[in-house]
Amino acid sequence: MATKGMDTKEKIVQSALDLIHTGGFCATSMNDIVEATGVKKGNLYFHYSGKDELGLAVIREARRQYNAYLRDRITGDTPFRRLESLLDAIVSFHRSRDFRGGCIFGNTALELGGQHEGFSDLIRDVFREWTVMLAGMIDNAKEAGEVREDIKTEVLARHIVALLEGGVMMSKLSGSDRDLTDCVKSITAMIRP
Amino acid sequence: MATKGMDTKEKIVQSALDLIHTGGFCATSMNDIVEATGVKKGNLYFHYSGKDELGLAVIREARRQYNAYLRDRITGDTPFRRLESLLDAIVSFHRSRDFRGGCIFGNTALELGGQHEGFSDLIRDVFREWTVMLAGMIDNAKEAGEVREDIKTEVLARHIVALLEGGVMMSKLSGSDRDLTDCVKSITAMIRP
Repeated sequence: MATKGMDTKEKIVQSALDLIHTGGFCATSMNDIVEATGVKKGNLYFHYSGKDELGLAVIREARRQYNAYLRDRITGDTPFRRLESLLDAIVSFHRSRDFRGGCIFGNTALELGGQHEGFSDLIRDVFREWTVMLAGMIDNAKEAGEVREDIKTEVLARHIVALLEGGVMMSKLSGSDRDLTDCVKSITAMIRP
Repeated sequence: MATKGMDTKEKIVQSALDLIHTGGFCATSMNDIVEATGVKKGNLYFHYSGKDELGLAVIREARRQYNAYLRDRITGDTPFRRLESLLDAIVSFHRSRDFRGGCIFGNTALELGGQHEGFSDLIRDVFREWTVMLAGMIDNAKEAGEVREDIKTEVLARHIVALLEGGVMMSKLSGSDRDLTDCVKSITAMIRP
């Protein structure tokens, strides 16, 4: 939500983020953003040359907010518990939105992945960042004997990212958190030694 | 690809399927379909009242083709091998397209899931159908002692559907089959007893 203290550029990006997260990139027009922000069209185009430039700023801001949200929620006294707390935070994030919009990164990847290299590169980076973070946590959990050793860390990390993206998609479609929570429960059971 | 023998309606649906699979529902216009098929606009609207009706016909046809493709490729002398052959067929399908367009069902679910109940219901059905098929195969494999017993069949089935959707998304984005093949390799390792 936009608040009074934000400057125009922040207000535009936050409104566009809300609209694109909920409705998708393709379905959100610059006019929708004008309406939602009350910022005049000329002013909007003064800050952003067009929807692509604004869309990239939105994905960067979504990445910054989501990563900060996750970082703040990683807790636990063993590497495995920290991994579980991360997965729980992801479930909570989407549950608190009633799965409205699902994952903005996955959505945008699917909508634009084949067409806009700028978006592909940026979202690839987001997924790579998550994979690296998960790999570090899995490595620590392996060292502590809390995760099975027979599957490569990087493979497990990529498995979890793909599973979460698919699980969020399924929960968005079904409107129930069961799809995502079942994915999380089964993966945490299956990666145990 | 449209061939000469098809009647107009089939030609429209197949062209629309190719366009929507590759470019997405939102980005494909009725004019694109007119151009791709050479069918006159009046004729197109004689068969389909609009993009939504055509889109639903496209998803139904995609489901029919994909399920027939999969059914033809399930082979193997044990339940586990049949499950593996199904997963291999899914990888081969997307690899043969160079992951162009990814999964038409997942894409459309993400693009329209929140907005069009007709699409949501249909795509939920597709995923449910796959889950039921997988659950049957997993149950058989459990009975044969080829799959771990400690995770409920339905949970495993939903896990695999979500994982495949996420894996196809990742491979589409990366342009490499490694994301999806790693998902398949790790899940077949982790569901073993």
